[in-house]
Amino acid sequence: MKALVYGGPGKKSVMDVPKPEVENATDAVVKILHTTICGTDLHILKGDVPTCQPGTVLGHEGVGVIESLGSAVSNFKVGDHVLISCISSCGRCEYCRRSMYSHCTSGGWLLGHTIHGTQAEYVRVPHADTSMYPVPQGADEASLVMLSDILPTGFECGVLNGKVAPGSTVAIVGAGPVGLAALLTAQFYSPARIIMVDLDDGRLEMATRFGATDVVNSGRESAAEAVKRLTEGVGVDTAIEAVGIPATFGICQEIVAPGGVIANVGVHGSKVDLHLETLWMQNISITTRLVDTQTTSMLLKTVVAKKLDPSGLITHRFTLNQMMEAYDTFARAAQTKALKVVISAG
Amino acid sequence: MKALVYGGPGKKSVMDVPKPEVENATDAVVKILHTTICGTDLHILKGDVPTCQPGTVLGHEGVGVIESLGSAVSNFKVGDHVLISCISSCGRCEYCRRSMYSHCTSGGWLLGHTIHGTQAEYVRVPHADTSMYPVPQGADEASLVMLSDILPTGFECGVLNGKVAPGSTVAIVGAGPVGLAALLTAQFYSPARIIMVDLDDGRLEMATRFGATDVVNSGRESAAEAVKRLTEGVGVDTAIEAVGIPATFGICQEIVAPGGVIANVGVHGSKVDLHLETLWMQNISITTRLVDTQTTSMLLKTVVAKKLDPSGLITHRFTLNQMMEAYDTFARAAQTKALKVVISAG
Repeated sequence: MKALVYGGPGKKSVMDVPKPEVENATDAVVKILHTTICGTDLHILKGDVPTCQPGTVLGHEGVGVIESLGSAVSNFKVGDHVLISCISSCGRCEYCRRSMYSHCTSGGWLLGHTIHGTQAEYVRVPHADTSMYPVPQGADEASLVMLSDILPTGFECGVLNGKVAPGSTVAIVGAGPVGLAALLTAQFYSPARIIMVDLDDGRLEMATRFGATDVVNSGRESAAEAVKRLTEGVGVDTAIEAVGIPATFGICQEIVAPGGVIANVGVHGSKVDLHLETLWMQNISITTRLVDTQTTSMLLKTVVAKKLDPSGLITHRFTLNQMMEAYDTFARAAQTKALKVVISAG
Repeated sequence: MKALVYGGPGKKSVMDVPKPEVENATDAVVKILHTTICGTDLHILKGDVPTCQPGTVLGHEGVGVIESLGSAVSNFKVGDHVLISCISSCGRCEYCRRSMYSHCTSGGWLLGHTIHGTQAEYVRVPHADTSMYPVPQGADEASLVMLSDILPTGFECGVLNGKVAPGSTVAIVGAGPVGLAALLTAQFYSPARIIMVDLDDGRLEMATRFGATDVVNSGRESAAEAVKRLTEGVGVDTAIEAVGIPATFGICQEIVAPGGVIANVGVHGSKVDLHLETLWMQNISITTRLVDTQTTSMLLKTVVAKKLDPSGLITHRFTLNQMMEAYDTFARAAQTKALKVVISAG
């Protein structure tokens, strides 16, 4: 079958690889109908994720149809359409019992990382019963791919950890796909104000369309000063960091109000300065999290109920044999205005 | 009256100052029966707290008897014995209504900081109704001074923020008075293990007497390795930082388990490195807090019920006219083995 294979730092190619088979009784093999590319895939390609070996099929997001099942899988049958979670979880270890699926002792982020992923014609999904979700009747399957990773990530790591609440003030630093996913799901809780901070006017315009009450271009003015001005000098109850660099984490420290939360969503490659000399007495929390996808079922219900429309995050569509073009479009997002690119079976 | 007056960095003296009077309708003037010295007083004397002006009477802890009251005070009468909180709070601003008394817009840490404090014969307590507590019948008044600051600080900033829970594992880095206050109050929640980390064997011995299950001398071995060994390589659910320097905050980052909390209690004078390059995916929280003293009433009940004995924290006793000797004993704690020194009216 055709698959997008990581060839080591800077290298990727579409090549023929063996079609996966059921290896364990808890596996499913799924024919991919729709997949997408994540910023994390670009991190792998830069060489930032040494735990991903050359030769690995990339991709941890997807919707597909079950081709074959191991004997121990009981929640699904062959032919079912399923949403594949970016997190595989056994459901039985101590971390899974605490809903910390990302730290599952035999799971976590496996697909497109330590085992072959979803940017292929077929994928083997371990722990199938607890790592896939039935596609709701009548749902737009392509847009459900947004629920494999970025919507639960923005929601769990940003909105839930950030304790977004009715009447509260929220700033989201970074208006990329995950920052916008946080923006969309923050609105479940009716905050008074959602301020989006980014360097790109195009993304800020999109944020306004998606429900931001205020936008700040941090290339043109001090983000901290602008957010303070918008909040009568107090700062925000929730500062969501959705970039993953020291500068944006620094902005969050400047804008969080006493009693507030900095909810880190970004994937960081280096340490940051934490200004405890001022923050020690500010009664704040800082949270970190790899998405657990414990809310995926709940998010699917919000899509069915039309409280959440993931389709707006999709800017470009390709077929599997245009995979290299899809990567190029996504990697040059500043020029192409790409948010999420959906890649569908031909 | 006699008082201990801050004279600028490095300078303090006992001198005659005017006896305080009621200035606002919500004030009380209290004759001090017992007070103590806090590590924060030493910080002021080093010049680390520029908001404290030379000429200020130091001290933010005390038990006393009410000498006079403003016309708006309704919870107390002259002659009542009271515990004075280190935090003054109006009870009416937005922060007070959220129980964030430390951020009260007309209160917070005032005594011995921005107004005259308790290391004197008399003190004026603003917002008296909501900043003092009746001394329970029959209580040991000298040991109640431990409830002005260090016990609520260890409990709120360490134990409550750190989410200490039955069966959980806790490490407390720093076995000074506040670290020991956290140790005492952590036991309310029956954690499985409380590991104390310090450089001083004398303090670690005291920690063992106070209920620590394990002690680690971080001068003799790697604290991170020792704590990991004691927790089967997993780390602790709660890491309480009770020192306030980058090295000890660093230890906490190394020992916190996935899903755990680093509860900062220490007063920091400089920024620290936050290792988000590893912690971003560890599902942890970091909390900071200036004590709100919202639990003072509850802690008083635990003392009356003999669930908490603050008297063990007191190592030395002085009278008001031995104030300079008391400071010397407290400042040279490594030699004198001082934890808390109580200074009582002569």
